[in-house]
Amino acid sequence: MDNVNVQMIGTKITAIKEYLYNFARTHSPTRLMSSENTYSLSKEHGNLKYSDILPQNAEGFPATKEFLMKVVDILLDYIKTQSDRNSKVLEFHHPNEMLRLLDLEIPDTGVTLQQLLVDCSTTLKYQVKTGHPHFFNQLSCGLDLVSMAGEWLTATANTNMFTYEIAPVFILMEHVVLQKMREIIGWPNGAGDSILAPGGSISNLYAFLAARHKMFPQYKERGLAAVGGQLVMFTSDQCHYSVRSCASVGGLGTDNCVMVPSDERGRMIPQRLEELILERKAKGHIPFFVNASAGTTVIGAFDPIQEIADICQKYNCWLHVDAAWGGGLLLSRKYRHPRLTGIERADSVTWNPHKLMGALLQCSTIHFKEDGLLISCNQMSAEYLFMTDKLYDVKYDTGDKVIQCGRHNDIFKLWLQWRAKGSEGFEKHMDRLMELTEYMVRRIKQMPDKYYLILEPELVNCCFWYLPTRLRNVPHTADRERALGEICPILKNRMMESGTLMVGYQPDDRRPNFFRNIISSAAVTEADVDFLLAEMDRLGHDL
Amino acid sequence: MDNVNVQMIGTKITAIKEYLYNFARTHSPTRLMSSENTYSLSKEHGNLKYSDILPQNAEGFPATKEFLMKVVDILLDYIKTQSDRNSKVLEFHHPNEMLRLLDLEIPDTGVTLQQLLVDCSTTLKYQVKTGHPHFFNQLSCGLDLVSMAGEWLTATANTNMFTYEIAPVFILMEHVVLQKMREIIGWPNGAGDSILAPGGSISNLYAFLAARHKMFPQYKERGLAAVGGQLVMFTSDQCHYSVRSCASVGGLGTDNCVMVPSDERGRMIPQRLEELILERKAKGHIPFFVNASAGTTVIGAFDPIQEIADICQKYNCWLHVDAAWGGGLLLSRKYRHPRLTGIERADSVTWNPHKLMGALLQCSTIHFKEDGLLISCNQMSAEYLFMTDKLYDVKYDTGDKVIQCGRHNDIFKLWLQWRAKGSEGFEKHMDRLMELTEYMVRRIKQMPDKYYLILEPELVNCCFWYLPTRLRNVPHTADRERALGEICPILKNRMMESGTLMVGYQPDDRRPNFFRNIISSAAVTEADVDFLLAEMDRLGHDL
Repeated sequence: MDNVNVQMIGTKITAIKEYLYNFARTHSPTRLMSSENTYSLSKEHGNLKYSDILPQNAEGFPATKEFLMKVVDILLDYIKTQSDRNSKVLEFHHPNEMLRLLDLEIPDTGVTLQQLLVDCSTTLKYQVKTGHPHFFNQLSCGLDLVSMAGEWLTATANTNMFTYEIAPVFILMEHVVLQKMREIIGWPNGAGDSILAPGGSISNLYAFLAARHKMFPQYKERGLAAVGGQLVMFTSDQCHYSVRSCASVGGLGTDNCVMVPSDERGRMIPQRLEELILERKAKGHIPFFVNASAGTTVIGAFDPIQEIADICQKYNCWLHVDAAWGGGLLLSRKYRHPRLTGIERADSVTWNPHKLMGALLQCSTIHFKEDGLLISCNQMSAEYLFMTDKLYDVKYDTGDKVIQCGRHNDIFKLWLQWRAKGSEGFEKHMDRLMELTEYMVRRIKQMPDKYYLILEPELVNCCFWYLPTRLRNVPHTADRERALGEICPILKNRMMESGTLMVGYQPDDRRPNFFRNIISSAAVTEADVDFLLAEMDRLGHDL
Repeated sequence: MDNVNVQMIGTKITAIKEYLYNFARTHSPTRLMSSENTYSLSKEHGNLKYSDILPQNAEGFPATKEFLMKVVDILLDYIKTQSDRNSKVLEFHHPNEMLRLLDLEIPDTGVTLQQLLVDCSTTLKYQVKTGHPHFFNQLSCGLDLVSMAGEWLTATANTNMFTYEIAPVFILMEHVVLQKMREIIGWPNGAGDSILAPGGSISNLYAFLAARHKMFPQYKERGLAAVGGQLVMFTSDQCHYSVRSCASVGGLGTDNCVMVPSDERGRMIPQRLEELILERKAKGHIPFFVNASAGTTVIGAFDPIQEIADICQKYNCWLHVDAAWGGGLLLSRKYRHPRLTGIERADSVTWNPHKLMGALLQCSTIHFKEDGLLISCNQMSAEYLFMTDKLYDVKYDTGDKVIQCGRHNDIFKLWLQWRAKGSEGFEKHMDRLMELTEYMVRRIKQMPDKYYLILEPELVNCCFWYLPTRLRNVPHTADRERALGEICPILKNRMMESGTLMVGYQPDDRRPNFFRNIISSAAVTEADVDFLLAEMDRLGHDL
């Protein structure tokens, strides 16, 4: 074969390759999403699969990098769109419709990297933008990008938090950050012990378990047989439901979680607490645990910690403060008092940086005044995991203190965020959120025909009714409240269908449905609050 | 002022700016890490802080993007280094030394974005590379890069999993993936119910709670008073310690978690289980829960599920299979049987995709044969959170079924990974890990002078002693075992100090310390196994 022929064959092979490539690209069974073409891998990598990149293919770094960079493109576009006030907060579809729009199937044979990029961009297309400045729906709103960068690194480091051996830097970060938080709570030199838990509910469970262990050390081995009577715990009727859940999980039964009435502002009434303690004691029960909520879920109320602490002292009860929601205000000199005054008297404190402080989900902490309790309560002496004959000082190993064994690394995103903001930055953030809430309250009061403020907020929860035209200038009776409650789900539906706004609503024990607006995102400005109020009116005036 | 002068002043200002910039860069109080200069922001953004980027500064997208791209550079370099077999697995320092090397301080005033990049690269410099091909230390080894891309997206979407309202796509993904997993377990059409939990220990706790609730529905409200006697649970003496922890957390007391003896291969002895059930019944106790381990932590043993299921049926006990570790083998036709035969008879199954399947931490699932139990067991009727008057079908809301309230999004990384691999890819991965383990066993047997295999593995746990020169050709007595045990921590120290290798060791109830090698990373090849055996010999022959 002469050179010319070889060249010709080469050219033909290239043409055939080209044709096959294009055919595969245009006839692939993958669903064609609008965004597909934007995030295309280079021709060279267009048909690669997971097995062509690291770690399966040790030579696959270039393709790995290209794939990951395209993912990052998708994420950056999402971040950019989310911060654009003209973009939608969500594109709502009912579950059945959504199932038709998406290709969620788990295949027998894996899809290409290119299809994974389509999967990623489609997923984000239909995801609710929780960091959008017009998302006011949850206690955790917003997207702190430093914390997010921290979470990307956390994923890449992919380690478990049980020992210093495999997570040395992160374990030390936990020590530094948690000690700082205990100092802020007000325990001298940050003494005590703490752990990061998967959410406030599990944090509260840790407190319950430690309290029971402290007061009845034999409970761990012997259970109820170690106690001469029925254990009883107390919390306000406004508390987070996870407090009651402790009674169920821990085997007390929810009948033995006494719900103490609260005043019209949602704060536990200390006198009623004392009466109920005495009532149970008279029955031969053993009151051992009182939960004070610092920032209730719906209205953001703060129980009077000092008065509750006095009662706990008098009746020898463990005082737990559930500051999962309100704890962030500890960072603000202006707003800390009187709301959290006395918190240093607590035996344990739950405080979720993933709420007011804006750390990425999940980031929850539980703190104990007494050091050593966590380990003595929770260790199961799994010598095969937590040996003491190690190279280093094993007091840094945490695996034996927790009920989870393995723990996700929830510290790095918080540590990095705190480095970025400094304590001053967090204080500024808290003050800003409170000022924006005050702004919202002022604006609502300026529009008494359109909005009805239910109560003056102590936190960033702003509870109100929206008044459609037909319910304006009407006496505020139980009938009107009922009618206002009925429009909440309808107006919420309109928000979701228009995709312009998300604000939550719920009933409570005293009222039918009402709106609860949360300002916990650093993206929100006064103009966004104005938008919110105007948009609800636009969507709801005819209801 | 004429034009020339203006130009001159302009030039001077630029020069001064330049000088100040360089001065700040070279005299900043930040610690200068080796990697600092590699990840420099452009001059324009060099002194920016968190408040200059999104979401605080709505105009800050260009700087946001540059900052995040630099973070990604750091992460990509980490991934690249980690996959290089010539790089170290770790750079070991004792805690006190590490505290001197790092700047972990939480400042009052936040640091610059540039310093955050230094923080990120320093953190990774000292982090143990759990995805390195020579990291054999934990049940979770390796870094699946598709799963990691999923976790980056998860962080960016930053949503909570309690309702369809705020996590529509992710909630639907949970439905699809969990149903698939139930099908694989063997429940017809994937019927039942499941949830993702923060780790296998909490998954096991879910099983315990559901079992108690199913058998004693009044326990939730009334606690022990609802039952006429002492509840008792059973598990093997090789089980994961979290099973015993359920007895402590749930208030039974660990005395009422009966440890059933296991045979020489670490498998529960069914006859002993039955005897112990009868023994407790004779005392008037109420046996209600049996845990069968499918893949024990240390030796990877599988309890005989069929025989245990027969006993559970006979004595009306709930059967839970803790397949947190071994569950991945359900995906392999070759290795599923006989190890997991009978698992479809279980009432509940724990299965952690973050272990054998290599999903990023954390990813743990708990499955129930009976639908409806999770919600009836765990709901606290928090009407204010989980309303039923919503726009969409609220059966998709999960918040009321769980004990955590908020839940981290652990599904996307698993879904994306499964899309990439397909079920066939997972099967191939399982088979490969088992074949590599078989290879290691063969190699060990070929070197009887240097290695002592403790038992034939049923899973990827390979348990052995290394024999230094002085202990070769010596009868294998209790004395030799003791001596071999003593060298484990010393050899491990040498591994960590040389930074070339990580293999775990521990004692068990029958032996002093021994090495337990885990092959669960897709990065490992036969050559890495050979390296491991040669390296241990290099480091330990003189011990």
